[in-house]
Amino acid sequence: MSVRLTILTDPRSAGARRELPLTPGLTILRAAHDAGIDVTATCGGRGRCTSCRVKFVAGAVPPPTIGDEVQLGDEQVREGYRLACQCAPTEAVTVQLAPPLEEAAFQILGAGAGVAGRVSIASGVDKQLVKVALPREEHHQTSDVEELAVAVGMTPADVAPGVLAGLPAALREDPAGVTVTTFAGRILAVERGDTTSMRFGLAIDVGTTTVVTTLLELSSGEQLASVSSLNPQSVFGGDLMSRIAFAQFNPANLRKLHTRIVGLLNQQIAEVCRASGVLSKWIYKVVVVGNTCMHHVLLGIDPSHVGLAPYAPVMRHALTLPARDLFLKVAPEARVCLLPIVAGFVGADAVAVALATRIYEGDTRRIAVDIGTNGEVLLGSAARLWACSAPAGPAFEGGQIRHGMRGAAGAIDRVTVDDDVRVHTIGETDALGICGSGLLDLVAGLLDADVVDWTGLIQVETRDALPPKLRERVVLRGEERQVIVLRAGEAGAPREIVLTQDDVRQVQLAKGAIASGIAMLQHVAGVPDAQVGELMLAGGFGNYLSIGSAVRIGLIPDLPRERIRYVGNAASLGAQLSLLSEAERALADDVARRIEHVSLAAHPDFEQIFVDCMNFPR
Amino acid sequence: MSVRLTILTDPRSAGARRELPLTPGLTILRAAHDAGIDVTATCGGRGRCTSCRVKFVAGAVPPPTIGDEVQLGDEQVREGYRLACQCAPTEAVTVQLAPPLEEAAFQILGAGAGVAGRVSIASGVDKQLVKVALPREEHHQTSDVEELAVAVGMTPADVAPGVLAGLPAALREDPAGVTVTTFAGRILAVERGDTTSMRFGLAIDVGTTTVVTTLLELSSGEQLASVSSLNPQSVFGGDLMSRIAFAQFNPANLRKLHTRIVGLLNQQIAEVCRASGVLSKWIYKVVVVGNTCMHHVLLGIDPSHVGLAPYAPVMRHALTLPARDLFLKVAPEARVCLLPIVAGFVGADAVAVALATRIYEGDTRRIAVDIGTNGEVLLGSAARLWACSAPAGPAFEGGQIRHGMRGAAGAIDRVTVDDDVRVHTIGETDALGICGSGLLDLVAGLLDADVVDWTGLIQVETRDALPPKLRERVVLRGEERQVIVLRAGEAGAPREIVLTQDDVRQVQLAKGAIASGIAMLQHVAGVPDAQVGELMLAGGFGNYLSIGSAVRIGLIPDLPRERIRYVGNAASLGAQLSLLSEAERALADDVARRIEHVSLAAHPDFEQIFVDCMNFPR
Repeated sequence: MSVRLTILTDPRSAGARRELPLTPGLTILRAAHDAGIDVTATCGGRGRCTSCRVKFVAGAVPPPTIGDEVQLGDEQVREGYRLACQCAPTEAVTVQLAPPLEEAAFQILGAGAGVAGRVSIASGVDKQLVKVALPREEHHQTSDVEELAVAVGMTPADVAPGVLAGLPAALREDPAGVTVTTFAGRILAVERGDTTSMRFGLAIDVGTTTVVTTLLELSSGEQLASVSSLNPQSVFGGDLMSRIAFAQFNPANLRKLHTRIVGLLNQQIAEVCRASGVLSKWIYKVVVVGNTCMHHVLLGIDPSHVGLAPYAPVMRHALTLPARDLFLKVAPEARVCLLPIVAGFVGADAVAVALATRIYEGDTRRIAVDIGTNGEVLLGSAARLWACSAPAGPAFEGGQIRHGMRGAAGAIDRVTVDDDVRVHTIGETDALGICGSGLLDLVAGLLDADVVDWTGLIQVETRDALPPKLRERVVLRGEERQVIVLRAGEAGAPREIVLTQDDVRQVQLAKGAIASGIAMLQHVAGVPDAQVGELMLAGGFGNYLSIGSAVRIGLIPDLPRERIRYVGNAASLGAQLSLLSEAERALADDVARRIEHVSLAAHPDFEQIFVDCMNFPR
Repeated sequence: MSVRLTILTDPRSAGARRELPLTPGLTILRAAHDAGIDVTATCGGRGRCTSCRVKFVAGAVPPPTIGDEVQLGDEQVREGYRLACQCAPTEAVTVQLAPPLEEAAFQILGAGAGVAGRVSIASGVDKQLVKVALPREEHHQTSDVEELAVAVGMTPADVAPGVLAGLPAALREDPAGVTVTTFAGRILAVERGDTTSMRFGLAIDVGTTTVVTTLLELSSGEQLASVSSLNPQSVFGGDLMSRIAFAQFNPANLRKLHTRIVGLLNQQIAEVCRASGVLSKWIYKVVVVGNTCMHHVLLGIDPSHVGLAPYAPVMRHALTLPARDLFLKVAPEARVCLLPIVAGFVGADAVAVALATRIYEGDTRRIAVDIGTNGEVLLGSAARLWACSAPAGPAFEGGQIRHGMRGAAGAIDRVTVDDDVRVHTIGETDALGICGSGLLDLVAGLLDADVVDWTGLIQVETRDALPPKLRERVVLRGEERQVIVLRAGEAGAPREIVLTQDDVRQVQLAKGAIASGIAMLQHVAGVPDAQVGELMLAGGFGNYLSIGSAVRIGLIPDLPRERIRYVGNAASLGAQLSLLSEAERALADDVARRIEHVSLAAHPDFEQIFVDCMNFPR
C-alpha cells in the first residue's frame, strides 16, 4: 500500500503543496523528481551535498542517516532537516523544500569591453533596404519570392523557408521598402521598412554549472548586455558524470535536461533583450560553445556513450542550424553556429578558449587554464597544441561545500588569515556563504597559519600554538574538524559559516584535478615551469581568484607573477570572436583539428602525478 | 446581456453538449466556430448550401429565412431545421448539429497499378547496410559521426541533424551493422540492423475538396495503399475563394486551415501504413502537389494576396524540406518535395497533370482537363503549352447541390432518362443522394427528354407533353421548379431526392467554368476542335463521368469519341512519377517554366465565351 507524501513546494510559504503516493523504499528526492517537482540535487542524489535538504513539518521525523549528520550537522538535524536523497519515509509525512543557500537568479554582468577592437568585424550578417517590384499584371508569371530574389541579386532557393509565411505582408506594408537580412548566401529575414541598423547576435557559453549569454551589436562589436545563470540542469546532478548518469539510456530524463537548458537560454535571451531594448527578432546569428556533454544535450543527442570508455563524442564537427530547430526565440531563421569539439571531455569551450587566448600563435609555449566544474587545460604554441580535461567539480563554484555559494551578493570572496580570520563579501553586504575565490584565500591563509597542514588535515591537535582568536575558530564537533569562519552575527552573517574537513578535501580534489592536468600536459609536451612563457587563467572563477592563493595551494605552478595573467571568460570571448568574425569561426575548425587530446586516465604516469597534486605545497 | 446557446454537438445523440453565450446578431455558425465547434459550411456561410443545417430541439424555432426555405425546403423547415449561417437567435435555444448527407470518412482506394512501368525508377532514396568502426581507444580523436561518414564515403556535414539524437544507440545495438538511408547527398536515417528492403515514399495530392495520399514501394514502384478523404478545411469554405477569404489577414484562421490539413495528412499516413503494414519511419521521400492556395497553406504561408488581383503566388519554385518542418509523421529527416507552381490559380497539381499526361511531348496538340473544385485546363504540345484555371466549384463533388454527395456508397452515379428516371447507386445500396457523374447523366438525360431546355430552365409549363411517369416528376413547389429524381422509397431512398432549378444553375456554372477554360485556350492557341489530337479527362471525378453526358451538356467539346480518353487522377500520378524518379522531378521544373498561364478574367474575349458556355448545346 502506498504512503502519502506531502511536499510543500514553496520554500518560503506553506501555500503550494503536492500530495504524492510514496512507494516504499523510494526516496523523497526520487518521488519528487518522478512527479516533476524541482528539487536541486547538486551531487546527483548521492548524499554528498546539502542542496536537496527538506524540513519535516508533519509526521514522524526519521532518524538521521550518516549523510544527514555529515552534510547537515547537528543543528539542522535537530531542527528536522534531512537530505531528500537519503530519506525514504515509511509513513505519511509532510516535508517542506528548504531554500538554497543562494538565489539561482540571473546575474547581470552588464555591458563590457568584450572583444571589439581585437578582431576585424565581419559577422557575415548583412542587411540591406530594397524596394521590391511587386507582381502587378495578371499575365506576368512571377511571385513575391522571385521579385525579392531579383531585388537582392539572389535566387528563390536562397530564401530560407521560415521567411515565406510573413513575406507577402512585409512586402506590401511600407512604401519605404523592406530590409533583407542575409547570412552565408541565405535570406534569413525580410522586415518591413528600414531596420538596417538593427543587427544583433548572441554568444552563449553553456557550462556545466554556469550559463553565460552575451548580446552584441554586430557592426560595432559592442557588448550590450550579458547575463550569467546557474545551469538549471544542476538539479539533476552537479558534475558532468552525474548529469550523464541521469540521462544515460533514459530518453525521458534526456528530454528533461534538454528542456531545461532550452528554457533557460530563452529566459536569458529575453533578459538581455529587455536590458538592452533590442527585439529578439533582430538577433540573426548565435554562436554557442560548451563542453561536449552540454553541446550534445542542447542538440537532443543522447550523451550516454560520452560517459563510457572510450568517452567518444557523437559528433565533433561544427554545425549550423536554424534557431527554430533549437527552439531558440530569436529570428526564426537566425543561424545558430555550434563550434567544433575536440574530444568527449574537451569541448567547443576549449576551442573557444584557444581562439580567445591566441595560444595557437607564436613560438612561446603557453598554458591556458579554464577553471570550471568541467575545466580544461591547453598548452602549446604555433608548433603544437595539447589539451586535456580537468574535472574540478563544482567546489570552486560553491557546490558540495557546506556553506559554499556562487559569486553573488553576500558571498565571501576575499579572506585574510593573520591572528584571526577576516572576510570581504561581494557587494559588502551581510555574509551568506563562501564562493570559490574566498575558499581559495581561506585555505591558502589557513595553510600559511598552520591551521591546515600539507596533507589537508585541519590541525585541531596543535591548535593551542595558534594566536588566541584563531585558536577559538578551530574546533572538533563530534568527529568533524571545522574552522569557524564566521560566527552568527560576525560580518552580519545570519548564521555560523564554517569550513569543514570535508570542504578542505573537496578543495584538494578540485585543485588536484586542475594541477594534475597542467602537470600532465607539461610532462607530455616536455615543458618545465621555466619554459612556460605565460599561464592564462580563464573562466568565470579564474577571473576572481587571487593568484597568490592559487599558487599557495598548488592550483597552478609557482611561476614568476608577471607570467601569470587573467584572460576573463575566454570561452565566452572565443564565442564572441566567432560571432563577430566569420574568419574567426572558420579558424575554430583549424584550431580544433590541431589540438591533440591528452587522455589523462589512459596515461601510465597520471596516477602518481594526481596523487602528488592532491597535497598542498609544503 | 448575452443569450445562452446550447449546441448538441453529436449529430447522432443528445449526449455531448456545449453551452455558449450568444452575442446578439451573431449567427449560430459564427458562435460555434468562435468556440471551436466544427460546423461544416461548404459555401463559406453564405446560405448557399445545406451543410451547416441544425435542428432546433428546445426554445422557440425562429421564422425561416429565404435561405432556409430555398436550401432546406418546406419539409425540413417544418421539422425545425435551419441553416446555422442564417440564424441569429435572440433568446435561449438548444440546437443539434445535423448529420451530413454523407460520411466524410476515409475512402480506401486500395492498391493500384499506378505509374510503375511508365518510368525508369530512380527515386534518389538509397539504403545500404554498413558496419561502422566504433571509436575504441581514448586517445583516438574521432566520433560516431566521423566513423559513420567514413563507412559510407561521405562527410560529417552530410549527416542531417535529426539523425544525430539516436545515432549512438543505433550504432551499438546490432552486430549486423546499421542501414544508412541517403537522398540528394544527405544521410537521412541510420537504423540498426538490416532494413535495406524497407524503402517507401508518399505521393500526396492536396485538392480543395479531396486529399489523396498514396504509399509506394520505392524499388518496384508498386502502389501499396491509397486513401482519399474530404479536405477538412472545407468546414471553413467549400471553394478556394471562400477558403482564402476565411484566412485573409487573419493569422488565427490561417493557423486553423494549416492545422487541419497537417492533421489530415498524418491521419492518412497512419491509414496507408496500417493498411500496408509499413512503418512510417521507413518513409523517406514525400512528393506533394496541390493548387497554389493549398500549397501555401500547407507551408503556413499567408494566401491572402493569392485571392487579390493580380493573384500572384508568394512563391513558385520547387521546394524540398525536412518532414519535421512540416510536422509530417514519417522519418523525421524524410524529404518533402513540393513541385513548382505556375501561377496563383495554376498550381503544382497542373504541373503534375502535365507530367503524367506527357502533354509537353510530341507534335500533336492535346488538351488535359483536370476536373475539380479548382480545376485546370492545359493545351499544347512540345512546341508550346498553355494553362488556365477552371474554377468549377464543388458541384461536381456534390457540394452546393440540394441532395448532392461525394462518390461514396449510396450515391446515385448513373442515371438514364427515357419514359421515366432510372438510377444506379454506388455499391448498389439504398440511394442517399446524387454524386457528380449521376448529376451529369441526369441533366444530359433531362435535356434529351426536353425536361430542361438549352437555357437550363426546368420545363414545368410544357410538362404535359412528357410521358406520364416523367411528367409526374416535374413539379412546381412554391416558386421552385424541381425534378423529383426519387420519391421516398424508390430505389430504397429513405427520403425524396430532387433536382432543383438552382441545382441546374450550379451545374451550368460548373460546366461553364470548365468549358470556357477549354474554349479560351483553344482560342488563344488557335486550335479549333478539328486540330485537337486528344482530350484527356483527369481528376477523381473525371474518371467516373460518362463522356456522352459530358459532351451532351457541353462540359467538353464534341470531339470524336476515340479522341477522348480517361487518364485517371493525373495530379496524383504526376506526384507518383516525381516520387519514383528524380529525373521526372527535375523535369517538373522545366515543364512549370514552359507553361504559359492564360488569365481568363483579364482577357477581353472571355466574358462572351463564358456566357456562351453557360448555356447547354442545343
